[in-house]
Amino acid sequence: MQPTLAPSRGQSIPPSSRRRRSRRHRSSPKNFGGGSGKKVNIIVLGGAEEVGRNCTLIEYEDDIIIIDAGLQFPEEDMPGIDYIIPNIAYLRGKEKNVRGMLITHGHYDHIVGIPHMAPRLGNPPIFGTKLTLAIIKKRQDDFKNTPPLNLRVIDPTKYMQLGKFRVEFFRVNHNIPDCIGFVVKTPEGTIVHTGDMKFDYTPVIDPPADYQRIAEVGKEGVALLLSDSTNAANPGHQLSERAIGADLRDIIHKAKGRVIVGTFSSLLSRIQQVIWFAEECGRKVVIDGFSMKTNVEISRTLGYLTVNPRTLISPHEANKLPPEKVLIMCTGAQGEDRAVLMRIATREHRFFRLEKGDTVVFSSSVVPGNERTVARLRDSLIREGANVFHYKMMDIHAGGHSCQEDLKLLFSLLKPKYVVPIMGEIGMTNAAISVAKSIGWTDETALMTFNGRVMELSNGHVRLTQTKVPTDYVFVDGLGVGDVSDVVLRDRLQMADEGMVVIIASVDAQTGKLIGEPDIISRGFVYMKNSKRLIDETRAKVKDILTDKSPEVSANESYLRNKIRDDIGQFLFTRTERRPMVLPVIFEV
Amino acid sequence: MQPTLAPSRGQSIPPSSRRRRSRRHRSSPKNFGGGSGKKVNIIVLGGAEEVGRNCTLIEYEDDIIIIDAGLQFPEEDMPGIDYIIPNIAYLRGKEKNVRGMLITHGHYDHIVGIPHMAPRLGNPPIFGTKLTLAIIKKRQDDFKNTPPLNLRVIDPTKYMQLGKFRVEFFRVNHNIPDCIGFVVKTPEGTIVHTGDMKFDYTPVIDPPADYQRIAEVGKEGVALLLSDSTNAANPGHQLSERAIGADLRDIIHKAKGRVIVGTFSSLLSRIQQVIWFAEECGRKVVIDGFSMKTNVEISRTLGYLTVNPRTLISPHEANKLPPEKVLIMCTGAQGEDRAVLMRIATREHRFFRLEKGDTVVFSSSVVPGNERTVARLRDSLIREGANVFHYKMMDIHAGGHSCQEDLKLLFSLLKPKYVVPIMGEIGMTNAAISVAKSIGWTDETALMTFNGRVMELSNGHVRLTQTKVPTDYVFVDGLGVGDVSDVVLRDRLQMADEGMVVIIASVDAQTGKLIGEPDIISRGFVYMKNSKRLIDETRAKVKDILTDKSPEVSANESYLRNKIRDDIGQFLFTRTERRPMVLPVIFEV
Repeated sequence: MQPTLAPSRGQSIPPSSRRRRSRRHRSSPKNFGGGSGKKVNIIVLGGAEEVGRNCTLIEYEDDIIIIDAGLQFPEEDMPGIDYIIPNIAYLRGKEKNVRGMLITHGHYDHIVGIPHMAPRLGNPPIFGTKLTLAIIKKRQDDFKNTPPLNLRVIDPTKYMQLGKFRVEFFRVNHNIPDCIGFVVKTPEGTIVHTGDMKFDYTPVIDPPADYQRIAEVGKEGVALLLSDSTNAANPGHQLSERAIGADLRDIIHKAKGRVIVGTFSSLLSRIQQVIWFAEECGRKVVIDGFSMKTNVEISRTLGYLTVNPRTLISPHEANKLPPEKVLIMCTGAQGEDRAVLMRIATREHRFFRLEKGDTVVFSSSVVPGNERTVARLRDSLIREGANVFHYKMMDIHAGGHSCQEDLKLLFSLLKPKYVVPIMGEIGMTNAAISVAKSIGWTDETALMTFNGRVMELSNGHVRLTQTKVPTDYVFVDGLGVGDVSDVVLRDRLQMADEGMVVIIASVDAQTGKLIGEPDIISRGFVYMKNSKRLIDETRAKVKDILTDKSPEVSANESYLRNKIRDDIGQFLFTRTERRPMVLPVIFEV
Repeated sequence: MQPTLAPSRGQSIPPSSRRRRSRRHRSSPKNFGGGSGKKVNIIVLGGAEEVGRNCTLIEYEDDIIIIDAGLQFPEEDMPGIDYIIPNIAYLRGKEKNVRGMLITHGHYDHIVGIPHMAPRLGNPPIFGTKLTLAIIKKRQDDFKNTPPLNLRVIDPTKYMQLGKFRVEFFRVNHNIPDCIGFVVKTPEGTIVHTGDMKFDYTPVIDPPADYQRIAEVGKEGVALLLSDSTNAANPGHQLSERAIGADLRDIIHKAKGRVIVGTFSSLLSRIQQVIWFAEECGRKVVIDGFSMKTNVEISRTLGYLTVNPRTLISPHEANKLPPEKVLIMCTGAQGEDRAVLMRIATREHRFFRLEKGDTVVFSSSVVPGNERTVARLRDSLIREGANVFHYKMMDIHAGGHSCQEDLKLLFSLLKPKYVVPIMGEIGMTNAAISVAKSIGWTDETALMTFNGRVMELSNGHVRLTQTKVPTDYVFVDGLGVGDVSDVVLRDRLQMADEGMVVIIASVDAQTGKLIGEPDIISRGFVYMKNSKRLIDETRAKVKDILTDKSPEVSANESYLRNKIRDDIGQFLFTRTERRPMVLPVIFEV
């Protein structure tokens, strides 16, 4: 079944006309809150227990839609992993049912799974706003060998029919433009998915969230709200993107030397403001960092960024200007190893060296887990003589998510029967549940779900079942997707913590007797040059094992290997209190 | 030269009598700010660029004193390392000059280097207050094979002569009792070292910092202040330990089920308060976690903790009481793997299972870098049904360090000619310098030092030299101290990120021709069972290399090894975009 994009009729659809038009679709439900005895399954595949890996399925009979397909950044105990994507094992055999992937906005934790997932789902249509799709399309350049994506631009003032789902939209604010939430009208009731959102009366690029439209959706009746929860533990209202301007502007206006502003490459509202402030005080702007350059390019082309064409210059040109005429906007504010800010700090940048008098601003909040790295970067920059401002010192960061008072407004406008917060760690979804309960929802109507847990919507009622579909991590590591398993990770962790010792010995294939001296190679265990005695003793120990007299020992290579692994492991632990991975290699000659 | 402990004369020494008494010591300087043309070297070996590894040397001619000897926790890029201790390479050959190690307080970042350093320094006397030394002594139980430490209790109302240094003391507050700062009077001027400190009008266990004594020290003239800077980026005054009581007390009084409070094992003031609040509402207390039990035991014995003897019970007894009568105080609030709180969350605790209605309080700030781990622990606890309170939600944590207004008071009481903030990351020492400058110090008198940099004090003037003594990390890993080098760490990191591939081949010793099939073993690279094709191709590639026809190839084993390493490395990267460590093992048969 192909999705139907409804014809355009002006800028917004009054509820009456929308209802009328929907009747023209045969498959459209007559009664959004009505009941047929059948069930809609709602499954959050990722994002119910973490910030990232966002992916939610809605399934009714033979129709499935997927909302978002993002990455999750790896944890400390996942060395070498690039990122984690949603597990779609549940969709195996159901690929033909997928009517579309709906994307709320263009951030990586909502889109990066697409190139990996779409080909496996038969390349379904992907729906998003103009900017969102442009970012998805650009990223697809890294995946030359996959078929082109089937991208369909959404006009948020319209609606569309996907199988038995009628999907409508509402604009929200975040810190990238063109964010939308989805209203999915099913035969069993209406489901709303907000995407990442906040309300912003004075956003920087896009218009404010569509309060009236959201209220209208609520008025029509919502059974289930899947809401943002990332900042639900924070009291009060989220700051407006524009409010942070005051501080940033102040820093940029007062700075005497060069200004270097580090932020996320996708934080377009921040980038826009910094460009404006630079222009105000006659500074030229260098955009540095591949992803930031790409995003600025896309946004300019689509008209999302207002930049005087003479403002942007190359690093080369910048170095010919006096420092007070230059502002460098770059990536790496999270302390990423190879990003611009780190290369400047370590004097490895091709064009820029820090100079005394430079001002460096970290204009992004620190992603949890990066605190130490960011602190080290900050310290390197101070050491190099820069004036450093970071978000703890001034309010140069506004979050993109609803705080507690914003959630209260959201819940009150939509008045859903059930609230299920997603897009957050459990501490965050739990906080959002408390917010809902503080204004009238109950233990029965404000519910916590977990990744993979099947929720059923039937006749307007939501039930959390005990059924769980697979949500094990799918690791992306280099070109491999899913080929790094828990076993591999466990090995990596052991080698990282304790190193590895390879023991190589030749034995006579007939007698099992040791030939020559065993070889000991260690990596990441001890520095061999300084540990000659330990190595010699280990070698002697191996010889003992291999010259053991009992006949069954000499006969059995795998027995010998195990014995070496166990005995040498124990021996090394006694001597060092470390447990390196011991890898015996026995040659039968 | 043996240190001299001055005779006791009452509780505090008025300045006049102290001055008089000091004249009786021949080696005591006549004029603390005077000049002899000679120089005092002050070298911060650790703690000038990090929180931890605190260690400062003061050297004048043949006399050296060491202040603090602490650990630093390893960074992310130091897998497997237990901790880092100060590098005392500078003291090689000068061991006999060390007159003593002076310890400000009993926290691990100030004492853990002692068992490793003292034996290498000829076991010098170690000076500290009663509680500090009791903690050092207890920790020494883990080092059975080293000679007993030469511990000497300080009475903070006295002074002592160590070589040409006259050392006096002043009491400060922190979040463990019995903290002191040192006043080191040298022939070239007075140096003050604060240790970790805050001012607290209403501390929980010990008396408030000795404001009058600190002012007196200032009145007598201070050339150089080495001050705490850990919280220097925070405006305002640090909270009193007692102020946090209100929140904690509230949570404990209101809780309906069991209460579990996680905190640092050394946060004795917190432990004391929690015990009091439990007693108020008729709860018995279980102390759980080895180090916490030890600290409570030491502190009770020395009279630092007031506990009704019937309050403390065993886990066994606790499980026989109704939940509302039990409070469990435990370690693991940083998400440490094997600590109590984690074992409770993962249902691996011997005695305690979480029950719905339990309240869990994280009563300690999160050590930077642990944020994600703590969030995961919190989420596990919520998932198990607990009510979780953590420091972000309520003010249940007060820091132990001076904030900006406290530093202003400290600087104003001591009026040092020079301020050199230490005990912090560069961002923190830099913030403390800004604080000093905001109240009158200048670029010339508020100075930033770095680890190992030699500062000279001469005739009351401080100069930062360009000389740097070694401060490379000394890693403690299991039983090994210093045997893990950068090479070993680099190997660990490579294996952690990319895994390892061992390639084993036998060649004919005469002809260099391959015998049989090469063996490929991988660990932490790909899951071999699922990557048969890649392994087969790698094997074929190795065979190609080893059957190369050119004669110089067959002749040279090390050439072959390098070629396998490079070619296979490149091949695997092309195929996987990973760079595992390739370890070729060639057998000549």
